[in-house]
Amino acid sequence: MIDDLASHVNALPTGWVREMGITILAATPDEVSCEWEVTEKHHQGYGIVHGGVHCGVIETLASLGAAIVARPRGQRVVGLENSTSFIRAVRSGRLLAVARPVTRGRTTQVWEASIRDEEGRLVAEGRVRLLCLDEGREL
Amino acid sequence: MIDDLASHVNALPTGWVREMGITILAATPDEVSCEWEVTEKHHQGYGIVHGGVHCGVIETLASLGAAIVARPRGQRVVGLENSTSFIRAVRSGRLLAVARPVTRGRTTQVWEASIRDEEGRLVAEGRVRLLCLDEGREL
Amino acid sequence: MIDDLASHVNALPTGWVREMGITILAATPDEVSCEWEVTEKHHQGYGIVHGGVHCGVIETLASLGAAIVARPRGQRVVGLENSTSFIRAVRSGRLLAVARPVTRGRTTQVWEASIRDEEGRLVAEGRVRLLCLDEGREL
Amino acid sequence: MIDDLASHVNALPTGWVREMGITILAATPDEVSCEWEVTEKHHQGYGIVHGGVHCGVIETLASLGAAIVARPRGQRVVGLENSTSFIRAVRSGRLLAVARPVTRGRTTQVWEASIRDEEGRLVAEGRVRLLCLDEGREL
Repeated sequence: MIDDLASHVNALPTGWVREMGITILAATPDEVSCEWEVTEKHHQGYGIVHGGVHCGVIETLASLGAAIVARPRGQRVVGLENSTSFIRAVRSGRLLAVARPVTRGRTTQVWEASIRDEEGRLVAEGRVRLLCLDEGREL
Repeated sequence: MIDDLASHVNALPTGWVREMGITILAATPDEVSCEWEVTEKHHQGYGIVHGGVHCGVIETLASLGAAIVARPRGQRVVGLENSTSFIRAVRSGRLLAVARPVTRGRTTQVWEASIRDEEGRLVAEGRVRLLCLDEGREL
Repeated sequence: MIDDLASHVNALPTGWVREMGITILAATPDEVSCEWEVTEKHHQGYGIVHGGVHCGVIETLASLGAAIVARPRGQRVVGLENSTSFIRAVRSGRLLAVARPVTRGRTTQVWEASIRDEEGRLVAEGRVRLLCLDEGREL
Repeated sequence: MIDDLASHVNALPTGWVREMGITILAATPDEVSCEWEVTEKHHQGYGIVHGGVHCGVIETLASLGAAIVARPRGQRVVGLENSTSFIRAVRSGRLLAVARPVTRGRTTQVWEASIRDEEGRLVAEGRVRLLCLDEGREL
C-alpha cells in the first residue's frame, strides 16, 4: 500500500529520497515514518551526519504526510518553511524518523518530525509549514 | 585555494556536498558561496528541487564560514538550528548560494544565506545558528 | 501619514504595540521601521529585554509591511511563522527596528527584520512568513 | 512554591510577564505551564492575539524551564533562537500554555511549547534553543 501511496502522491522513492537511501516505512494522514543507514554520503566534513540531511528527511516526511491529506481534496502541497533543531551528532548506524500533523488545514498544514538513533535517543527535531494548492494553481 | 581551505576546515568536497555535486566558489570569514546544477537527484516527488537540498546548501555554507572563523581560535563548530524559507520552485538550471555572517561570537555564530537562480531570482533564504566548541570538547 | 496608514491597515497604535510603547517611524511597501525605549515592562527575569519583545517587534513590522502590500489587492494578512535569532542582550536604551520584504507574493509574503541599539549593534534578527487572504476569507 | 521558584530563578512575575498578565501555573524541570486571559493589550491591529505574544509566552516558559534545570549546576540561561508557528487566530478567552524539554544539555537546551484555547484547540506551537552559561560568564 505504501508503494501505492508513493506512486499516487508522486513523492518517492525518486530523486533526493532515493539518492539518500531513505526507506519509507509508513505513510498515513496521521503518521509518516522512514529509516536509513548512515553512510559517507550523509556526512559533512567532520564525519557526522550533515544537518541538511536531517532537514531533508523532516521535509520529506512532512511533505508526504501533507500530500496524503491534500490529495483527496484535489490539492497539492508545497513547503513554505522548515525549522530544524539539531540535538545529537551521529556518525553511523540506522536512523528512524517519524512525522505527525500539527494542523491539517485547507490552506496550510504544519507537520512536526523527530529523528532518533537505534537506542531511541533524539537526534533532530523539526517543524515544516506547507501550503495547500488547489488544482490548477502553479507551484 | 578552496581545496586548501577545504582540507583545513575539513568540510568539503566530501560526503553530502560531493554527493549533491556542489562546487564551493569562495570561502572567507566574510562570505562563502557555492553553485550547483539541478539534476534529478535534487528533486522531490513533483520534480522540483527538494526543500532539504536548499536547507542543506544553506547549512553547508554557514558551517564552512563559521569553521573558517573558528579555526584560528582553535575551535570547531556544530550546527544548532536551521531555519529556511522556500521562496520559488525550481526544476532545472544552475543555482547560486551566498552566505554572510550575522554574528561571529566566541560561543555561537549566526550566518544567513540566500539561493538564487540564473536570472538572480530568490529561490530560498535561511539562517543557521552554530555552536563554537573549544578544542577537546565533544561534538 | 503614518497615522493615516495606521488606521487604514488597522494595525497600530493599538493593543500590544501601544502597550509596549513602540513608535512606528515609517511604513511603506518596501520598508517598515519603528523604535522604542527599553523599560522594565520589556524585561525578562534577568533584567534584559525579553526575547518575546524582539519576536513581537519583528512580527509587528512584518505584518504592517505585508498589510500595506496586500491592502490594494483587497487582501488581509495573517502571520504563519516567526523565526527570530537573539544576538545581543540589552538592558536599556533606545532600540531601532527595520523590516524589508523578501517576497511579496499574492499567496504568501516573507519579511525579514533586524533590531539594533543606539550604537548600531545588532540585537536580534528574524523572518516572518505571512498568508495573504482574499476578502471574505476567515482569519 | 511557584513564587519561591520564581524568586529563585528570578524570572517572574516581573517585567513583560507581569505586564501581559500571565500566571505561571507550574514550573518543574519537566514541565512549565501558564495561563492568561486575552485582553486588548494582547491584540494586533485586526483584534486577534498578536503573534509576538505567543512567541513571548513560549519564550517565557522555555526560559523558566531551562533556568530551573540550569540553576543547580550554577548556570544561567539565555535564549538563542525562537521558532513559533501560528495555528489558530484567537480574539478572546483564556489561553493555556505548556512547555516540555526536548534536550537539557550542559551547553544548550531546547524546549518546545504549545498554546491551547479553553476548548483544547491548538493556537500556537514553538521551539526555543537556549544557551547555558557557567557562573561569571557574561550574558
